[in-house]
Amino acid sequence: MDITAAYTDLYQITMAQVYFVTKPNGKAVFDYYYRRNPFDNGYAIFAGLEDVLDILESLKFSESDISYLKQKGFENEFLEYLKNFSFKGSIRSSKEGDIVFPNRPILQVEANIIEAQIIETLLLNILNFQTLIATKASRIRYSAKDAILLDMGLRRAHATGGYYASRAAAIGGFDSTSNVKAAEDYNIASTGTMAHSFIQSYDNELDAFRDFAQVRPKNCVLLIDTYNTLKLGLPNAIIVAKEMEDKGEKLFGIRLDSGDLAYLSKKARAILDAADLSYVKIVVSNQLDEFVIKSLKEQHAPIDVFGVGTNLVTGRPDAALDGVYKLSEYNGDPRIKLSENIIKVSLPFKKQVYRMTDADGLFYGADAVAIYTEGEIDKMEHPFDITKQIDISALKKEPLLELVMEDGKRIIPARTVTEIAEYSQSRLAQLPDEYKRFQNPHTYKIGLSSQLKKERNDLINKHKS
Amino acid sequence: MDITAAYTDLYQITMAQVYFVTKPNGKAVFDYYYRRNPFDNGYAIFAGLEDVLDILESLKFSESDISYLKQKGFENEFLEYLKNFSFKGSIRSSKEGDIVFPNRPILQVEANIIEAQIIETLLLNILNFQTLIATKASRIRYSAKDAILLDMGLRRAHATGGYYASRAAAIGGFDSTSNVKAAEDYNIASTGTMAHSFIQSYDNELDAFRDFAQVRPKNCVLLIDTYNTLKLGLPNAIIVAKEMEDKGEKLFGIRLDSGDLAYLSKKARAILDAADLSYVKIVVSNQLDEFVIKSLKEQHAPIDVFGVGTNLVTGRPDAALDGVYKLSEYNGDPRIKLSENIIKVSLPFKKQVYRMTDADGLFYGADAVAIYTEGEIDKMEHPFDITKQIDISALKKEPLLELVMEDGKRIIPARTVTEIAEYSQSRLAQLPDEYKRFQNPHTYKIGLSSQLKKERNDLINKHKS
Repeated sequence: MDITAAYTDLYQITMAQVYFVTKPNGKAVFDYYYRRNPFDNGYAIFAGLEDVLDILESLKFSESDISYLKQKGFENEFLEYLKNFSFKGSIRSSKEGDIVFPNRPILQVEANIIEAQIIETLLLNILNFQTLIATKASRIRYSAKDAILLDMGLRRAHATGGYYASRAAAIGGFDSTSNVKAAEDYNIASTGTMAHSFIQSYDNELDAFRDFAQVRPKNCVLLIDTYNTLKLGLPNAIIVAKEMEDKGEKLFGIRLDSGDLAYLSKKARAILDAADLSYVKIVVSNQLDEFVIKSLKEQHAPIDVFGVGTNLVTGRPDAALDGVYKLSEYNGDPRIKLSENIIKVSLPFKKQVYRMTDADGLFYGADAVAIYTEGEIDKMEHPFDITKQIDISALKKEPLLELVMEDGKRIIPARTVTEIAEYSQSRLAQLPDEYKRFQNPHTYKIGLSSQLKKERNDLINKHKS
Repeated sequence: MDITAAYTDLYQITMAQVYFVTKPNGKAVFDYYYRRNPFDNGYAIFAGLEDVLDILESLKFSESDISYLKQKGFENEFLEYLKNFSFKGSIRSSKEGDIVFPNRPILQVEANIIEAQIIETLLLNILNFQTLIATKASRIRYSAKDAILLDMGLRRAHATGGYYASRAAAIGGFDSTSNVKAAEDYNIASTGTMAHSFIQSYDNELDAFRDFAQVRPKNCVLLIDTYNTLKLGLPNAIIVAKEMEDKGEKLFGIRLDSGDLAYLSKKARAILDAADLSYVKIVVSNQLDEFVIKSLKEQHAPIDVFGVGTNLVTGRPDAALDGVYKLSEYNGDPRIKLSENIIKVSLPFKKQVYRMTDADGLFYGADAVAIYTEGEIDKMEHPFDITKQIDISALKKEPLLELVMEDGKRIIPARTVTEIAEYSQSRLAQLPDEYKRFQNPHTYKIGLSSQLKKERNDLINKHKS
């Protein structure tokens, strides 16, 4: 399946036709943001921007899309418009890899309303998923400390979504992936070990290990739990490690994929060390997540490499980020969506977001949202609580939304996954630990400028009356 | 991203190279099966087969894949092999859309071990995900009874996995999708309504409704909760419905996307009926799943159409099916994978699975697994409990695994999603209700032939000694 402009919800095209007939030149500003941090985490890692920009630059309806829409009853004049469709708008965005928070714009699209509407689904589809997985990966990295992290989830991923999961995992802090296609296209490190089937295809395990070590001696990892981990697999691995030493080679590691990983890794470490194989690493896998890894670390399990699959690439248990795309301006006028739930009321206007840094270079713990035309602000107010406000005049303020696409062309240079991952780590290093803990992380504040708050409240009152 | 043979785990290629050097002509049989029904459901709906067959028929490594693997250090002779790689094996499978159960083969691959290994990841990736989503859709269909079900999850799906989610949802019982691309390629019905942004782009809601109804009068659904559902949205929708009547048109429906859907749908139904608009349907959405729909039905909420998004396309809360691919024969010899957990011991041999039907044409509640060469069997034994066996001699037995691909070519005609969905419904109609309930569904039995059980136990004992 190629991503074309038909990679969208039908209602986008239906609404587009109405706009085409009734107000073809409407100019819209849409905000992308989410409402709740995934996994009850203290932050999210914004990911997917480069893919969105790449796709948008060449987005078209294919001939087959046009035939399909004709068959759906769309009219010829509108179909002619769609044949020539391209996205010609502007995008202002947070940097990919930055830490982001709920209820503040992460990205703003400014475009003809037809174009802005048609790209909505694609944009949400790519950004919601990659942000979810990069955030999960970031939590796993936090647990695993300096251990090596390997993504091996493709077989349990949501079909071709697994391709994007491997990219997002790298941004969130994984060292490598088993996913060849993603590694090839995104220039991510790729690694792999061996499967049980490899060993089963031999009459005995030792022969399997020997063949593997002979043909693939470099980074060789032997899977030792097919029949009996400590009584059979480990002794066979030690035999092969010694045979490799005789040839001047070194066994990279052994892998445990079942049983109690804390117990087995300690036993295996002791046996390997007693055999003078302290350089042989211990690789583990089997339904790992950030909590299992945290527990293994707390038990001082001597594990060098964690292979994480299902829980990483599916973003369990949340499995989705609740990102939305809301109209905030139309033809220069501010727009708002009301809700019974005050948290769900959207923020009107084209906006800028400022992040404050303290004297030590750490994030102050607050992003302030202002109307774009206001420029820098001195005071930040709580979005609803009228008793809460903070003087931010003395703090260093960084504007977070930068122009990344103009007239449908990207205007920032392409960044590699490695560059994005490094930027993400540098930003996380500025975030105090209290926002990173898993249990009730400290709440990073999102405030509004006084002007934005007043104008929003005026709009609410106007609609309520 | 195009799916090529590099859409796999690196270890498959590493193992392939070892096989290529040491035993290039090994012949393997692999079983695809899963271990636990998703969502604690009583069954799963098998989906994804047609996609797998289509992809396998033309699977190749691209030039860029070969360059990448060269750069990864794979040797020239093996790279030459990969350049000419195609899948030339056979596949025997359950029919797509059938109801399936844990711990029995759903599909068997018989091929050169290199080919069988390289396709493992792709096969698991497509089948695990689509089976998960078709099963979720089936549960939602069970709750919703005869109501119309609309998939609208693309924006929260796992990137391009959403394309396959829409296909699987249709197989599991959904009537239509918002996903234009999937509808176009898989010939699924597509539908859509309107977004809040459409209404927000107008100075008032009534103008928005009027423009929409004028341009798109067919299947017109008005979203009534942007500002105030009962005080503003519904009265405006009624004005437009009456204006449409004057032109000989009929408003299809109104949509509720927030608030208490039971309360609001009853109020809206009464108000519409009082305005002589009993034909106007009520469409609802907002974080629906099988449990919310069941509750709405129990409250007699007069809802005609349920739009389901996130919980459907992400397969929440499970988010993954634990499907595996295990070697069961190598060069004609049975193979087994042991485990500390007896449930995880694999079944050796090339096999056939039989489903028993009772005199009323209902499924008897048991599938029996036998060695392929045994032919039909008279007795089925519990896999582990030596006290349990069933005489099945008098029951009608249907062999479930049919040859679908031979020498790398599909030998069954392509089936449309609609045909597969209809087949699935016909199979579900044969399954007694006690296997369909959500709370502790009755356990559908999986038994072994006496010969398979004895041979498996002999293999376990051989490896243990």
